[in-house]
Amino acid sequence: MNFCSNCGSDRLQFKVPLGDNRPRWVCQNCGTIHYSNPNIVAGCLPIWGDQVLLCKRSIEPRLGYWNVPGGYLENGERVEEGASREVWEEALAKVVDLEIHTIYSIPHINQVYMHFLGRMETLEFGVGEESEEVRLFREDEIPWKEIAFTSSVFTLKRYYADLKTGQRNVHIGHLDIEKFRNRK
Amino acid sequence: MNFCSNCGSDRLQFKVPLGDNRPRWVCQNCGTIHYSNPNIVAGCLPIWGDQVLLCKRSIEPRLGYWNVPGGYLENGERVEEGASREVWEEALAKVVDLEIHTIYSIPHINQVYMHFLGRMETLEFGVGEESEEVRLFREDEIPWKEIAFTSSVFTLKRYYADLKTGQRNVHIGHLDIEKFRNRK
Repeated sequence: MNFCSNCGSDRLQFKVPLGDNRPRWVCQNCGTIHYSNPNIVAGCLPIWGDQVLLCKRSIEPRLGYWNVPGGYLENGERVEEGASREVWEEALAKVVDLEIHTIYSIPHINQVYMHFLGRMETLEFGVGEESEEVRLFREDEIPWKEIAFTSSVFTLKRYYADLKTGQRNVHIGHLDIEKFRNRK
Repeated sequence: MNFCSNCGSDRLQFKVPLGDNRPRWVCQNCGTIHYSNPNIVAGCLPIWGDQVLLCKRSIEPRLGYWNVPGGYLENGERVEEGASREVWEEALAKVVDLEIHTIYSIPHINQVYMHFLGRMETLEFGVGEESEEVRLFREDEIPWKEIAFTSSVFTLKRYYADLKTGQRNVHIGHLDIEKFRNRK
């Protein structure tokens, strides 16, 4: 942020506004406080019997890696709408009976993933705009070393763990970037 | 948005960027695309035996109405951290064993509420900065007509419904503003 989006002034200061408890960009000309908050990434794991549908990314970041369909929730959307839309855009598939499955925070990049489970009513799917391949996987076929993001690993692992116990739970997780960087 | 926050130009156009499918503010001078996405309101219903802790708001909007403690998730926070922090800031109480309870979208104002249930380990609580009163309520004492927001009504109703069935579920809801305006 170099200029105030309200008045165009470059007199911005990063400071704690009156009555607040953390620093924000404040315009010294017009007084506007510019808040910045985490974004929601809404997604859904499409399920067809004992298989799940994943998308191989055709865009950066993590081009060529597999992912649970998902993307930024848009203004005017409900979370579950955003999740269904992303499945449609990336995998040309329709999901029904969505149930929330994982809530996964990534604090260092200000993201919160919300992944649903959704049932595919038909076997129709295809390669959406941001994908280079879309296919169904059985558990023993999941390309664990080629999954794009830890949020998808979390969602898949918890999905198969729940299948084994026969209980569907909602799982809260997060990425600790320090631990992640120091992993072996 | 009147000026580009990157270059200060007023040559902003609301249009669909190349490769996108919805309009954004795009700077015609430097090319920056300014995205706007929904915010998360993280909150937690503190539970003490058969009572829950609510806060009477000392700030607008809905000053003087009762609310489940909550507020905007901040950058760098996990959702569950934000929920605990808000309980501390508004009710000077500590909650443990947080479980996600409701996910409630309000599309027309680009908000997604995420409410947890949290156990109070001790009876310590007080009046936080944005509250004018904080107290425990039994179910038959809840001031239903003086609840600040529909998200809190949703959370409380589902909480007591779950108590009756003996099952804790995660509930997905939303506010349909058209229906809300036309309600009797």
